[in-house]
Amino acid sequence: MTERVVLAYSGGLDTSVCIGWIAEETGAEVVAVAVDVGQGGEDLDVIRKRALACGAVEAEVADAKDEFADEYCLPAIKANALYMDRYPLVSALSRPTIVKHLVAAAHKHGATTVAHGCTGKGNDQVRFEAGISSLAPDLKCIAPVRDYAMTRDKAIAFCEDKGLPIATSKKSPYSIDQNVFGRAVETGFLEDIWNGPIEDVYEYTENPATPREADEVIVTFEKGVPVALDGKPVSVLQAIQQLNDRAGAHGIGRIDMVEDRLVGIKSREVYESPGGIALITAHQELENVTVERELARYKRQVEQRWAELVYDGLWFSPLKRALDGFIDEASEHVSGDIRMTLHGGRAVVTGRRSQQSLYDFNLATYDSGDTFDQSMSKGFIELFGMSSKIAAKRDQAQ
Amino acid sequence: MTERVVLAYSGGLDTSVCIGWIAEETGAEVVAVAVDVGQGGEDLDVIRKRALACGAVEAEVADAKDEFADEYCLPAIKANALYMDRYPLVSALSRPTIVKHLVAAAHKHGATTVAHGCTGKGNDQVRFEAGISSLAPDLKCIAPVRDYAMTRDKAIAFCEDKGLPIATSKKSPYSIDQNVFGRAVETGFLEDIWNGPIEDVYEYTENPATPREADEVIVTFEKGVPVALDGKPVSVLQAIQQLNDRAGAHGIGRIDMVEDRLVGIKSREVYESPGGIALITAHQELENVTVERELARYKRQVEQRWAELVYDGLWFSPLKRALDGFIDEASEHVSGDIRMTLHGGRAVVTGRRSQQSLYDFNLATYDSGDTFDQSMSKGFIELFGMSSKIAAKRDQAQ
Amino acid sequence: MTERVVLAYSGGLDTSVCIGWIAEETGAEVVAVAVDVGQGGEDLDVIRKRALACGAVEAEVADAKDEFADEYCLPAIKANALYMDRYPLVSALSRPTIVKHLVAAAHKHGATTVAHGCTGKGNDQVRFEAGISSLAPDLKCIAPVRDYAMTRDKAIAFCEDKGLPIATSKKSPYSIDQNVFGRAVETGFLEDIWNGPIEDVYEYTENPATPREADEVIVTFEKGVPVALDGKPVSVLQAIQQLNDRAGAHGIGRIDMVEDRLVGIKSREVYESPGGIALITAHQELENVTVERELARYKRQVEQRWAELVYDGLWFSPLKRALDGFIDEASEHVSGDIRMTLHGGRAVVTGRRSQQSLYDFNLATYDSGDTFDQSMSKGFIELFGMSSKIAAKRDQAQ
Amino acid sequence: MTERVVLAYSGGLDTSVCIGWIAEETGAEVVAVAVDVGQGGEDLDVIRKRALACGAVEAEVADAKDEFADEYCLPAIKANALYMDRYPLVSALSRPTIVKHLVAAAHKHGATTVAHGCTGKGNDQVRFEAGISSLAPDLKCIAPVRDYAMTRDKAIAFCEDKGLPIATSKKSPYSIDQNVFGRAVETGFLEDIWNGPIEDVYEYTENPATPREADEVIVTFEKGVPVALDGKPVSVLQAIQQLNDRAGAHGIGRIDMVEDRLVGIKSREVYESPGGIALITAHQELENVTVERELARYKRQVEQRWAELVYDGLWFSPLKRALDGFIDEASEHVSGDIRMTLHGGRAVVTGRRSQQSLYDFNLATYDSGDTFDQSMSKGFIELFGMSSKIAAKRDQAQ
Repeated sequence: MTERVVLAYSGGLDTSVCIGWIAEETGAEVVAVAVDVGQGGEDLDVIRKRALACGAVEAEVADAKDEFADEYCLPAIKANALYMDRYPLVSALSRPTIVKHLVAAAHKHGATTVAHGCTGKGNDQVRFEAGISSLAPDLKCIAPVRDYAMTRDKAIAFCEDKGLPIATSKKSPYSIDQNVFGRAVETGFLEDIWNGPIEDVYEYTENPATPREADEVIVTFEKGVPVALDGKPVSVLQAIQQLNDRAGAHGIGRIDMVEDRLVGIKSREVYESPGGIALITAHQELENVTVERELARYKRQVEQRWAELVYDGLWFSPLKRALDGFIDEASEHVSGDIRMTLHGGRAVVTGRRSQQSLYDFNLATYDSGDTFDQSMSKGFIELFGMSSKIAAKRDQAQ
Repeated sequence: MTERVVLAYSGGLDTSVCIGWIAEETGAEVVAVAVDVGQGGEDLDVIRKRALACGAVEAEVADAKDEFADEYCLPAIKANALYMDRYPLVSALSRPTIVKHLVAAAHKHGATTVAHGCTGKGNDQVRFEAGISSLAPDLKCIAPVRDYAMTRDKAIAFCEDKGLPIATSKKSPYSIDQNVFGRAVETGFLEDIWNGPIEDVYEYTENPATPREADEVIVTFEKGVPVALDGKPVSVLQAIQQLNDRAGAHGIGRIDMVEDRLVGIKSREVYESPGGIALITAHQELENVTVERELARYKRQVEQRWAELVYDGLWFSPLKRALDGFIDEASEHVSGDIRMTLHGGRAVVTGRRSQQSLYDFNLATYDSGDTFDQSMSKGFIELFGMSSKIAAKRDQAQ
Repeated sequence: MTERVVLAYSGGLDTSVCIGWIAEETGAEVVAVAVDVGQGGEDLDVIRKRALACGAVEAEVADAKDEFADEYCLPAIKANALYMDRYPLVSALSRPTIVKHLVAAAHKHGATTVAHGCTGKGNDQVRFEAGISSLAPDLKCIAPVRDYAMTRDKAIAFCEDKGLPIATSKKSPYSIDQNVFGRAVETGFLEDIWNGPIEDVYEYTENPATPREADEVIVTFEKGVPVALDGKPVSVLQAIQQLNDRAGAHGIGRIDMVEDRLVGIKSREVYESPGGIALITAHQELENVTVERELARYKRQVEQRWAELVYDGLWFSPLKRALDGFIDEASEHVSGDIRMTLHGGRAVVTGRRSQQSLYDFNLATYDSGDTFDQSMSKGFIELFGMSSKIAAKRDQAQ
Repeated sequence: MTERVVLAYSGGLDTSVCIGWIAEETGAEVVAVAVDVGQGGEDLDVIRKRALACGAVEAEVADAKDEFADEYCLPAIKANALYMDRYPLVSALSRPTIVKHLVAAAHKHGATTVAHGCTGKGNDQVRFEAGISSLAPDLKCIAPVRDYAMTRDKAIAFCEDKGLPIATSKKSPYSIDQNVFGRAVETGFLEDIWNGPIEDVYEYTENPATPREADEVIVTFEKGVPVALDGKPVSVLQAIQQLNDRAGAHGIGRIDMVEDRLVGIKSREVYESPGGIALITAHQELENVTVERELARYKRQVEQRWAELVYDGLWFSPLKRALDGFIDEASEHVSGDIRMTLHGGRAVVTGRRSQQSLYDFNLATYDSGDTFDQSMSKGFIELFGMSSKIAAKRDQAQ
């Protein structure tokens, strides 16, 4: 029986060519799998038919938008996950979602190999392959661009040669990955890191400098999960989508950074994540109100490691699961409302209220009603500073 | 011989009353010490004379603005120090500066005690007293407001009773602490954390929502130290002052947060730090370009602990010194230029250039000139993901 | 109605005197509560009757040995909890157990206050009071030794004066706290830290230097829980007790250290924990075999923080709960057998076997059967070391 | 001009064959470099002559024992470096030492490539190659066993074929790496992790179970550096050597563990490091006495990361340098004497004394002379536990 390869299929030129290329290189049949994580673009059915037209023996499409929001974006929100304190892991979150569907298709169709369209110098190859080897350690992985030297020019030639039903128009200057949680852009002129981005680079966000009226939104969370906007119940997907629109209209969530890739190099990346940044901003401040200090301090470290792990492609790793165990426990009381002003590129928190609040007006106030017993402080300071004080005495005796 | 108390003196009502109050409570002579950390306001000589007029046996004033910038703000910039990822430690940085001068004055004037005007429920009492006990373990500390129940009303009555040369006009609704690195505001209506701040609260920053032309600035760093703005050499103090003006004019550096105090309660705080936030933003991105990945990842944890320690009043502690040992080594190559657009409440990095850059165009580019050997990736991914893969195999065999 | 105070009662001189002392100081009725955490000594019923004879209005005793083992010692074993890498938290584990019983008794008997016999310079006062304030924030705490200056001499005088039925024989030179998980000893001559301990100090352990035959034991764990010794099922309590005997017979689990107390001073402590150290030793090695590398590396940090938190009296804190969330997840596969030789003060692991093992003979072996693909290594090394290499190139160009 | 390859040469069969093998594979001339890090065995000059007899165009030998002790073992002692809390990094420390000499020789002899005898599944290949690429990013690395499939059998055949002056006697059942800091042993029967080691495995240590008289030693440190044994000045090398003898005579420093390799697999390792374990034991306890609590707590995390980095072959990385910056600062006061009993496989600390001690008898004692002000404790406990207490109140209101 002929071997089968499941291919992560986008409908674009590269992965359309991959179908025939893989067949030629390996002699295998190719099963195309397209996963909708909110990247927009063509209808899934159009994509499915194109795969078959390009030679796939089977083609599957899946609407994974809610799954992506609930199982991948939500844990990132609860983790306030910002790689290098900036990047909300847009692409790094979609890869494990896609991997899950690829592996399921491989099992269903009896495939022994999974293929993806990544190059050999980015993070996504690791996210695909480490993910696949964790969900299905026996599946092999191939990446035609990396492993079979399938360059852009060769792909266009292959396409024209075989008469594949794909436009081979001049390549866009932008290399883009997008999903409902955000959008990543790389492009030649930004590879000079002294160059600033131009407006043309952005799609999810308007220019923050354009004068316009501010918007105000109230986000309600239950145990870390966004459940309502302005009092109207929403799914996580809806929360992201609606905030993409509303925060995007004010230019919120643009990121321009030099980033440390897992493969050891630094790269220049431009991202947009209006909904993601708005939700994380609100979630962080709700945690400031509802999470106890020592837990909050420790959680920051956990968040950093979580973001690094997921960035590094280790979504399905044992450490990721254990960090989630910590985060779930820490999210138990993260419920309440956050009011934000959306304007000029910034989501600014202006109010918080929560039945779970640890802010105690009577302890905090300097006005009448103060219940804080200030006589406790002297003893506290004395013993809190004791070990430093003893060390200071020693040091000064030298 | 009469005992002497050194008092941290601001020139305002509270500490002016403290002079006589301490004398009455303790029988000691009071030496007033005022330290200029860029808080603005009255002339130091006016303050000095007022202290004497209020009964101080000695009064000392010190212009510590450059010392504050060089020895306290600069380490915070190198540490990207943001308590709870937000607050650039404005007051927490000035306290150890003042402590150093208080201790020096105590030694000079033979004082056995140091006094400060803090209440018993804030962080500053800890910063003063833990600092003093580290620099001079044998000095005692007193805080008349906390220890002798010197309330505002009693202070006004004392002032009028003694005919002290201070205006006892109605108290400002705002409780403010400010220095060249920023400004902290607390006020009654903000103690309801659902209330947003009003423009009246701010002094260092203009309204970011007001339409205006953007400003552009290039900050040059040498080993983590800001040394030039737009190519013109500056001291650290000048860098902060000039960016206070330029970033403040665009509403940059406003912070509104619920914060975990060291004494165990949560409080609502509003801050402004236009120069501080602009410099830290630039410094962070220059580190992204010049600091190796694993060092950068670890430094984030060090930064968090550094900020917590300093917030908690442990500036002069052994751990702080050792963290500085790490940070100094990590700053060795943080040299280069960062270009930022200042506008609409945001300092946005648009360019970076550095002789010390680790960004390698030829490794990063997807265009011609690419020197990255993609054939290395397969082996990397295989072994990088090996431990997770083996665990996955085990887990799936269950 | 008369106020009631619940007293943590041991049956000894100090807490027996506390009953009347508290009554005199506060006018309250005293309810005595004794909790058996395996400290040995007198029968619980004898203790109960003594409390009543000393004036308690109610006296409760509880056999909490299994509860202590299952709910307090077991989490410590799963956390490999060793404060300062040495001390298995013996006393720090018993305090929250006792606190739970004190609070239950306070609720049952309508008490408003809980009393304990600790001094004001140790850790246990914090563990009692922080624990009580977490379980019952409205209960007050008093410590007669600390708060009412109840010295040993005064206690003896009180005892004789009131004719309490307690022997007031000369005080033992040792201050001891013990439970089934171990034993803590302080004594005057050890306060000179140059002095070594003498054999007389120890009770749970024989002299390790005495020549004797080695013992061998196989400990079986299920998800981190010790469930069998030498194949015979045991409860956690039985595992600790039996290993106390068997490991104690070989002098295992003696600890002599200078320790950082929470109150800021260093103290000299001698401990014995034969069962605890034997179980943690076995558990650590089983984790080496069954826990994935990155999870294992991170867990070490979690373990350290867990031990510090519990040592510091924060058993019932939110952070402790979240760390347990991590540890529970990490323990999911820690099942299997560890064989140890017990001899000469050391529990030495000599064998491990587990259905959950991640050790793969075929990957590890250098003999025939090797399935490790060495050709992967070159690419791995190249990219693993890439960021350091690029930094090195930069550094050498300076 | 003919290319040159510098080969890490041990004098044994494998690397002797490498000389000719590399020449045949690459056409290059081979320069042999042998570095004495205290591994014992043959005279360096004998080794040098053998290299030339086997075809090396140049042969260099270096006595690096003091360099190894001072620059590699000492930082490990200051870091209390124990990978997985057990393994004192014996081989991981010698690799960077050797790398430095290889790179120097490559520069001296104009070589473009460095070769080593490691396989493709261990850690040492990474340590060699990551080290070389950090010291000399332009040098290439080859490993004939891994890259040219030079198996043991083929090596013996090559040796006999070429008449090389090496004994090709039957291979020892043990694969051994040793230096002055310790000894690592792997062997077939230990690849079954249920098998215990036999006495035959050990060379640096006597059987700890053999009854004998205990030894007692006083180790003196200055700023973390061992400077005297029993009052007699020693170099770091002498401290290690003498404690190898004295601690080894009592069976101290044996380690048997399942270990996480960098390449992603678990392996069984047996080590001996009598001097290393004795010195680290003493150093840890001196730190307990002389290092302030918060610094000590943080240093444990730094130590863990330091050990992982060095184990992982990143000795010459930027993060390692920055961690050393922390550790050097932390070691500033680690001076004093530690008395240990060496017996029965254990180095047990029995006394500490130090001019830099932070142990304060008067604060610690429960006897007369107590200067600790217990009245401070109540306020301390109240505020220390405040944030947990407020959270508890909230949680119980649910």
